[in-house]
Amino acid sequence: MSSEQLPIEIDDEGTGYLPGLAIDCVIFGFHQQQLKILLLEYHNTKLLALPAGFIQEDENLADAARRVLAERTGLTDIFLEQFHVFGDRSRHDPAPMRAIMEAKGMSVSEHHWLLRRFVSIGFYALIDFTKAVPIPDVLSDSCDWYDMAALPPLILDHQLIVQKALETLRVDLDRKLIGFSLLAETFTMNELQRLYETILGQELHRSGFQRKMLSLGILERLEKQYNGGAHKAPYLYRFVSDK
Amino acid sequence: MSSEQLPIEIDDEGTGYLPGLAIDCVIFGFHQQQLKILLLEYHNTKLLALPAGFIQEDENLADAARRVLAERTGLTDIFLEQFHVFGDRSRHDPAPMRAIMEAKGMSVSEHHWLLRRFVSIGFYALIDFTKAVPIPDVLSDSCDWYDMAALPPLILDHQLIVQKALETLRVDLDRKLIGFSLLAETFTMNELQRLYETILGQELHRSGFQRKMLSLGILERLEKQYNGGAHKAPYLYRFVSDK
Repeated sequence: MSSEQLPIEIDDEGTGYLPGLAIDCVIFGFHQQQLKILLLEYHNTKLLALPAGFIQEDENLADAARRVLAERTGLTDIFLEQFHVFGDRSRHDPAPMRAIMEAKGMSVSEHHWLLRRFVSIGFYALIDFTKAVPIPDVLSDSCDWYDMAALPPLILDHQLIVQKALETLRVDLDRKLIGFSLLAETFTMNELQRLYETILGQELHRSGFQRKMLSLGILERLEKQYNGGAHKAPYLYRFVSDK
Repeated sequence: MSSEQLPIEIDDEGTGYLPGLAIDCVIFGFHQQQLKILLLEYHNTKLLALPAGFIQEDENLADAARRVLAERTGLTDIFLEQFHVFGDRSRHDPAPMRAIMEAKGMSVSEHHWLLRRFVSIGFYALIDFTKAVPIPDVLSDSCDWYDMAALPPLILDHQLIVQKALETLRVDLDRKLIGFSLLAETFTMNELQRLYETILGQELHRSGFQRKMLSLGILERLEKQYNGGAHKAPYLYRFVSDK
């Protein structure tokens, strides 16, 4: 993609992209015992939105989502999965997009493709917070982490999209053992438990949680790290997916 | 919709429908201990496919899926849920649709909208086999039940769509307690167990299964029906969702 400072180099008709289809990404990170997501703030509008994108005519859907994700986080090869399609006609509201484009100094024709009805495919991603470098897109001033426990208002139905992504994450957490994607490579059992508790929104019994995790045979226990008070140093673990 | 015998009353441009988006429905039924799905056989082509449809410009996505389902089964108010979007560019193959339209005597322009790339949203439905009346669409000769254990070849990536629907059904079976949608209003514990075993593809322990089902508090036990050998008549149960 060229870096020409025009909002996505597409004409008024969206030539080269699949019409009427968008991708919205809920990108989860975990930091200081808080579950967070990435949001864009659009230039001069105070409008907050999920990172989004479109599908090129000759692009696989999943590749389009990976491209959006890489563009916003600098990361490739991370956990990413579609979770729901948002297709109510009530989600069609051209006002925010018109405001965003006008705030960017674009002249917006009444029939601009970005003002039409879109069906959006929701993807969610889990990334290691410490590795991501949030990058705004051409229409936005910032791309930053926001605490899930205190989300600001979002445009269109993006609040609903986030809620649905969280519900999916909760269901998938046990079934697909995906939580480890949110942690650094090594972690203590306590950190793992905090992650689960934060996502599930409930406290878990320490011994039961530890027993369950160890019984799955997916954790490798590493040496304790000497930290001056060895008797208190917790074991570090590593996720071993192929065990 | 008019009943004019033309394949969907849409012009070559698909006016009135969302472009590039389709719906494919995997409609499950259960009969004689077999899990089945509905397939259409297209006129004079021997091509078999899932019931499919498109989304009207002012129609909610879920309403479009319900409309397709009602048109093919005569049923409304049944369990229906989206499960996956199929968006690989490799699924774009205009040949089968051209063959289907030509077999129906249509003159097909090179740029007909039905020959373009479609992204398809998969929905799966669970229906009471005894209540459905399969109805072919305007392009097909038959709409019939096919045994999941011996599916014939299907067009495009429909085999993959069916496989993904079955995987989703297996996961959802416990989590959402949806299996009852596949049974008649009353059923024996044995029938319920056969349903679970068929979907999951594995045998379950009788006593454990019964204990688990009863512990959920969602089954109402009805009177035994006198059938001339009362000591052997099994109890009938009814699913009570609001318990």
